[in-house]
Amino acid sequence: MKIIREINKMKTYARIMRKENKLIGFVPTMGYFHEGHLGLIKTARKQSDIVITSIFVNPIQFGPKEDFKKYPHDTKRDEELAKTCGVDVIFYPRKKDMYPDGFSTYVNVEGLTGNLCGKSRPSHFRGVTTVVMKLFEIIKPDIAYFGQKDAQQVFVIKKMVEDLNMDITMKIMPIAREEDGLAMSSRNVYLTKDERKDATLLCKALKMAEELINCGERNPKKIIKRMRNLILESQSARIDYISIVDTKSLKEVDTLRDEVLIALAAFIGKTRLIDNAILNVKETEKAYECEKSQKR
Amino acid sequence: MKIIREINKMKTYARIMRKENKLIGFVPTMGYFHEGHLGLIKTARKQSDIVITSIFVNPIQFGPKEDFKKYPHDTKRDEELAKTCGVDVIFYPRKKDMYPDGFSTYVNVEGLTGNLCGKSRPSHFRGVTTVVMKLFEIIKPDIAYFGQKDAQQVFVIKKMVEDLNMDITMKIMPIAREEDGLAMSSRNVYLTKDERKDATLLCKALKMAEELINCGERNPKKIIKRMRNLILESQSARIDYISIVDTKSLKEVDTLRDEVLIALAAFIGKTRLIDNAILNVKETEKAYECEKSQKR
Repeated sequence: MKIIREINKMKTYARIMRKENKLIGFVPTMGYFHEGHLGLIKTARKQSDIVITSIFVNPIQFGPKEDFKKYPHDTKRDEELAKTCGVDVIFYPRKKDMYPDGFSTYVNVEGLTGNLCGKSRPSHFRGVTTVVMKLFEIIKPDIAYFGQKDAQQVFVIKKMVEDLNMDITMKIMPIAREEDGLAMSSRNVYLTKDERKDATLLCKALKMAEELINCGERNPKKIIKRMRNLILESQSARIDYISIVDTKSLKEVDTLRDEVLIALAAFIGKTRLIDNAILNVKETEKAYECEKSQKR
Repeated sequence: MKIIREINKMKTYARIMRKENKLIGFVPTMGYFHEGHLGLIKTARKQSDIVITSIFVNPIQFGPKEDFKKYPHDTKRDEELAKTCGVDVIFYPRKKDMYPDGFSTYVNVEGLTGNLCGKSRPSHFRGVTTVVMKLFEIIKPDIAYFGQKDAQQVFVIKKMVEDLNMDITMKIMPIAREEDGLAMSSRNVYLTKDERKDATLLCKALKMAEELINCGERNPKKIIKRMRNLILESQSARIDYISIVDTKSLKEVDTLRDEVLIALAAFIGKTRLIDNAILNVKETEKAYECEKSQKR
C-alpha cells in the first residue's frame, strides 16, 4: 500500500493508472475509520482495479464553533485497516497544499444546501463540494463511494456531478450501524457512557417513523412530533432538526408520496449526531391493510 | 470538420481522442468569429493534435438588462472560418442540455470577481466560471486558449484551474486589434459609423497611459484622470470604469510597481466595450531617463 502526500504525485500516480486502463475507485474520508468507511473500501475493492482512499479533515467544511481541531484521528490504525481491506493508495494531502494562501474558488450547489444540515451549518456543504471537486480533479476516479449516513452530502455531490457534467459514477452504500442500531460515526467516540445509551434514541425514532408510515400515516407533522417526543425522553438530547423531505428537491413535503428522506440531527450532550432513512412511500402499499387492521 | 451538438457525443469523441493519446486543444467561444477568435484557433492548430471549439452564448453570464437575446451570430460564416483554420470539431451545446430544469451548481472565484467588470456585472464571472468548468468537464482538454481582451475573465479562470487542481494548461493570446487600434469584439458590430470612430478613444487612452508610465508617471490616479478626459472627448462615451490593478489580486494599486493591468470598460452609445493592457512597470527602467530629459 502506497502513502502519498503530494498533490502532484497523486496526480501522476492516477494518470499512470488511467493510461494502463485501470478502473479507479475512490473513497474520500476524514479518517478515523469505522465499519462504514471499511464497507465503502471493501465495495470499491470488489468493483475497481485500483482503490484510492483520501484522509483529509477538511477545514472549510467546519464552522467556527465546530470540532475541526478536536476531530478524532488514529493514523496508524487507519493505515492498518486500509491495508487489510486492500487499499492501494492512501492520499493524505496537506492543508497548506489544498488551501494555499489566496485560495478563493468555491463550488456551491444552491437550492439543496439551504435546509436540513445546511441551516445550522451554513457554509458546510460549500466546503464539502469544493474539497470533493478538488479531490475528483486530482484523482479523476471512475467510481466514487459515499455512505448514505451523510444523506444530504450525497444528494448535493450527486447534483454537482450531474450539473457540472462530470464523468464519475457515484455509489452510495447503506448506513453501517452498531448492534443496537446507532449509526456508525467517527464522532461517536465523543459520547460518554450515558450519552452513548441515549444516542440510540435517534435510530429508534427513525424506526418508529418507518413503522408509522408502513401503518399508513401520511402526515409528516404527526410523524415528526412523535419522533421529537421519543428523542426528548433523554435529558441529554437537543434536537437540531427532524425533517421529512422529497429526495429530489430536499424540500419538506406536506404529505407523504413517492420517495422521501427522513433526516435528523441532534446534539447528545455536546456531540452533534445525524441519522436518516430513505423510504419509498409507494412501496408501502400493505400499509393500508395494516392501518385497517389496527382500526378494527 | 465535425459538428457535435449532444453533450454525450462530445464526451465520447473527446474520450476516444484521449485514448489515442491525442493532445486536445480547446477554444471556448460565443461565436461570431473575428480575428481574435481565429488567432486562438490557429495557435491551437499549431500546438495540438485535435482542435475543438465550442460556440455557446452562455445565458448565465449575461445580466437581465444585457444583450443576451441580441448577441450577434452567423453560424454559417463561423463554420466556414473554423473549417479554413483547421478546426476538427465545433461543439454547439444546446441551452436546455447545458442548463436543464433544476440546474443549481455554480463555481465562483471569490475575491477576483468583485471589482472591474464584476462591479457592474455582478453575476457575470460566476456564469463564466460555471460554463467553462462544464465545458472543461465535457471535453477535458489538455490546453485551453483564451484572449487577453477579456483580461479579468482570464485571471479568474486561471485562478479556478489552479485552486481546483485542474490539469489544463491555459494559453493566453494577445488582443487582436483593428488597423486603427480598436480591440476586436463581436460587439463592435453594434456600433454606428460615428460610434465606431469614437470607440478608438479606448485604445488611445491605454496607449497614452503606457506612454505616461514609460515616462515615469507612477501615480495611478493621475493616469486614470488623463485617460478619463481623453475618452470623454467623445459625447457618445460613458465610462463604466478605468482601473489600474495588480495582476495577482486584481486590487487597485496606490502606486505603480511590478506588473499591472490597466483595464477599462465604457459604453459607446449603447454598446459596452472593454479593453486593457498589461504592463511590467519594472521593465520601464528607461522611463526615468525619459522623465529626466523631459524636465530638462
